[in-house]
Amino acid sequence: MWRLADLAAAVAAELVGDGERLIRGVATLERAGPDQISFLANPRYRAQLAGSRAGAVIVSPGEPVDTAHDRLVIANPYACYARVASLLHPPVTPEPGVHPSAVLHPGVVLGADVSIGPQVVLGKEVVLGDGVVLEAGVVLGDGVQVGARSRLAPRVTVYADCCIGADCLLHAGVVIGADGFGMAWSGSEWLKIPQIGRVLIEDRVEIGANTTIDRGALDDTVIETGVKLDNLIQIGHNCRIGAHTVIAGCTGISGSTRVGRGCRIGGGVGIVGHVEICDGATISGFSLITKSVTQPGVYTSSIPSQPHRDWMNTLAALRALPELSRTLRARQRADAAQSPKNLEEGLP
Amino acid sequence: MWRLADLAAAVAAELVGDGERLIRGVATLERAGPDQISFLANPRYRAQLAGSRAGAVIVSPGEPVDTAHDRLVIANPYACYARVASLLHPPVTPEPGVHPSAVLHPGVVLGADVSIGPQVVLGKEVVLGDGVVLEAGVVLGDGVQVGARSRLAPRVTVYADCCIGADCLLHAGVVIGADGFGMAWSGSEWLKIPQIGRVLIEDRVEIGANTTIDRGALDDTVIETGVKLDNLIQIGHNCRIGAHTVIAGCTGISGSTRVGRGCRIGGGVGIVGHVEICDGATISGFSLITKSVTQPGVYTSSIPSQPHRDWMNTLAALRALPELSRTLRARQRADAAQSPKNLEEGLP
Amino acid sequence: MWRLADLAAAVAAELVGDGERLIRGVATLERAGPDQISFLANPRYRAQLAGSRAGAVIVSPGEPVDTAHDRLVIANPYACYARVASLLHPPVTPEPGVHPSAVLHPGVVLGADVSIGPQVVLGKEVVLGDGVVLEAGVVLGDGVQVGARSRLAPRVTVYADCCIGADCLLHAGVVIGADGFGMAWSGSEWLKIPQIGRVLIEDRVEIGANTTIDRGALDDTVIETGVKLDNLIQIGHNCRIGAHTVIAGCTGISGSTRVGRGCRIGGGVGIVGHVEICDGATISGFSLITKSVTQPGVYTSSIPSQPHRDWMNTLAALRALPELSRTLRARQRADAAQSPKNLEEGLP
Repeated sequence: MWRLADLAAAVAAELVGDGERLIRGVATLERAGPDQISFLANPRYRAQLAGSRAGAVIVSPGEPVDTAHDRLVIANPYACYARVASLLHPPVTPEPGVHPSAVLHPGVVLGADVSIGPQVVLGKEVVLGDGVVLEAGVVLGDGVQVGARSRLAPRVTVYADCCIGADCLLHAGVVIGADGFGMAWSGSEWLKIPQIGRVLIEDRVEIGANTTIDRGALDDTVIETGVKLDNLIQIGHNCRIGAHTVIAGCTGISGSTRVGRGCRIGGGVGIVGHVEICDGATISGFSLITKSVTQPGVYTSSIPSQPHRDWMNTLAALRALPELSRTLRARQRADAAQSPKNLEEGLP
Repeated sequence: MWRLADLAAAVAAELVGDGERLIRGVATLERAGPDQISFLANPRYRAQLAGSRAGAVIVSPGEPVDTAHDRLVIANPYACYARVASLLHPPVTPEPGVHPSAVLHPGVVLGADVSIGPQVVLGKEVVLGDGVVLEAGVVLGDGVQVGARSRLAPRVTVYADCCIGADCLLHAGVVIGADGFGMAWSGSEWLKIPQIGRVLIEDRVEIGANTTIDRGALDDTVIETGVKLDNLIQIGHNCRIGAHTVIAGCTGISGSTRVGRGCRIGGGVGIVGHVEICDGATISGFSLITKSVTQPGVYTSSIPSQPHRDWMNTLAALRALPELSRTLRARQRADAAQSPKNLEEGLP
Repeated sequence: MWRLADLAAAVAAELVGDGERLIRGVATLERAGPDQISFLANPRYRAQLAGSRAGAVIVSPGEPVDTAHDRLVIANPYACYARVASLLHPPVTPEPGVHPSAVLHPGVVLGADVSIGPQVVLGKEVVLGDGVVLEAGVVLGDGVQVGARSRLAPRVTVYADCCIGADCLLHAGVVIGADGFGMAWSGSEWLKIPQIGRVLIEDRVEIGANTTIDRGALDDTVIETGVKLDNLIQIGHNCRIGAHTVIAGCTGISGSTRVGRGCRIGGGVGIVGHVEICDGATISGFSLITKSVTQPGVYTSSIPSQPHRDWMNTLAALRALPELSRTLRARQRADAAQSPKNLEEGLP
């Protein structure tokens, strides 16, 4: 429980109304009760605000609030909501300690207050910063380093020599540092090219469930500070993802590609290898990038569905388009040859 | 071994032939031997039926069987085959009991005849229904509930407070209840929005290997009764998937989308967030849905491959299409201005 | 450390320069130092070669080397590099032995020098060949066989009765043999069709992190010798992937499809079920295959992104294309009816 005035002070918002009101948690405008706080970031939901039973709301200064709600007023209500929600719903952290079923190589170095869950396995010379949390079944290979306060959910696997920064959150099933997809054709079979680079993950990175990030072939794969990756993403060897870039689920990035800082990449996107995406670019979901992007902006190649028969007609017309284009160009040339001007010139 | 007559009775099919024949298992028409049963659901395979060595076959009443095969006759041979195969090949269930290497919080509640495999980890207040099977390495967070007879394959992870119904089957590597992809831009970094909803999975749901379903941000993510999900699917936070909907592999659904009941969604599909798909809709594989679907039917935007050079020609023509369209519209306007009617009107 | 002359002999390359030079490892032309070897396989990097500090380089006989680098000369420098790198950076193999926390069914059969890591779980009648390495948390179901020298990274799961050949490498989180996506509609619900086939993986197969390969419904799913699969790939039940085929990440192949030998399949590809891809076909990344491919060659349907507004224009024109095509065909018919020939015929 927080007093509303304390919340306002903690997030530097202006308080309007009863500072003594006790707030237990966050909820939607529709469902919040008198001990919950909600927010209005999108004018579309203004109608819900009026009828909301929420004990308090977070709104922007320009918001025409015709309600008696207690409220926090601040320029960026959604960011304020994120902060308030984090205060009211802090992550549940397990007690520090090492579960007896965990298997730690004798040489591991543990920071203060680390929590190591059941059946965790730590290889040679693993180093964990203060407050690191490793949940059940996490496996860290030899030489792995994890920075302070980072948390690895159950069954995260990190291969040897990879480094995770501070304040990271890796979700269940994430695999960091598996071999990149590198091989050479001998004439009769594919020869494996040893992948001897590492994965370096900087601070405050979040990685979604079952996402995979391959180690570099020679140099390292790098995920910079503040990057947020959704579930089931594949990042190939030697990629670099710039700071504060966000990538939605099911996206795949081939090897040696560099994505800039502050990019927003949708779900189901494909990016080929060996290209560069500049800072601040946005790639729409379900789109394909085949060459470098040098200007910020939005890039798209996705096609929304139509009713099947309509799409089949469109597709048939698309297949016939090269022939149609040729015919039209031929006729344009013929028309040009017979244009009035030519006719006049040809007149006696 | 089942007597054919017993099988017929168990699945309510009409028996034609020798009810005493002993049947050991199912097989394809091509490979079945005298102690195996096969089926004909697709007239394409009728030729195989005649030559099949199968001891018995399942056919529809209308089927012109000119063979001496013993047979089960029933309106829906494929569904009957599913039932017969399930009788002949019941899942191998491990013995009830708790493996000594499993780590159970003292407060867990276990139903009758549960089977808990090696290295399973159960958090505080986990509740398991009768006959639940947790295979090796399953991790259930605090407060997780699993309904009667549900089976979780090796290394399934369920985060705190999520609920799995009865008679569910979750395959290896599935992650239920990881945080949804929610964050707010502060002006300098992405702030995490705590994900405090749950995942609720109703009864008779099957979920394929390494599929991920995120917990809700505020409200819950819900997978209704009888839903079948293939491998490597991503379901975002606050989605609701309607009863008996099937979704093929590698499909991703963004947050807060509602899919209706009885939908059929192909593989590699993308559905954006905050849309609704009505009951009974079909989405073709590799298609993208960007807005709500309000009428049942088939929706498509996928493009089958062509030989590379042909496709490059098509793509070049597609790129030039906006210019071509503009040119043609301009000429149509010019033609209209010179049409016979106009010419006539212009005549003296 | 290897003498350069010994490396040359081991890979059957011609040595030019100082055979006594000691080589510690491989590196890029840009970063290599005097005890490292690099390679030039792509003429694009020729400029880097001249300035490289590498102690030795691998080049082709035709290469105009105007440098004083010691070198290995060989027809296929990239394949030679793969071999040299494998000699200089052999995989780190754990000591043979069985970790005390592993859970082995009494009937398992272990070859010589197997290494079984912490918390590995082996079911009934599992058979491991000589030198097999199972890393932490690997789970093998009843009756699984693994051939000599194969290595399974942490948390690989193999379901009952599946077979892995010799010299395979399966990365973390791989799931082999989960149930295929088979069910029959009863009229009111989906009935599960038991999946009683296996997965057979032949020799020298590499499988990337979190990739899933489903067991067959009746017959087996087969991955032939030398196949290389990247991360997050889905292979449906009863597929057969031909020898030495490579498939990049995030690709999905539906059930009962046969892919030929020596194919190259890009990332993010979809292949529908029940088709055949002939030997030696190449499928471009992000493309869809909906019917059998009978001729080798490259097949494509992917569309590279454009700036969003340009693509929206293209898309609008594409939507209008069927109507445009109809209009143009109608006019062509009308023009044909008024062609000079017709006009002449109509003259008095």
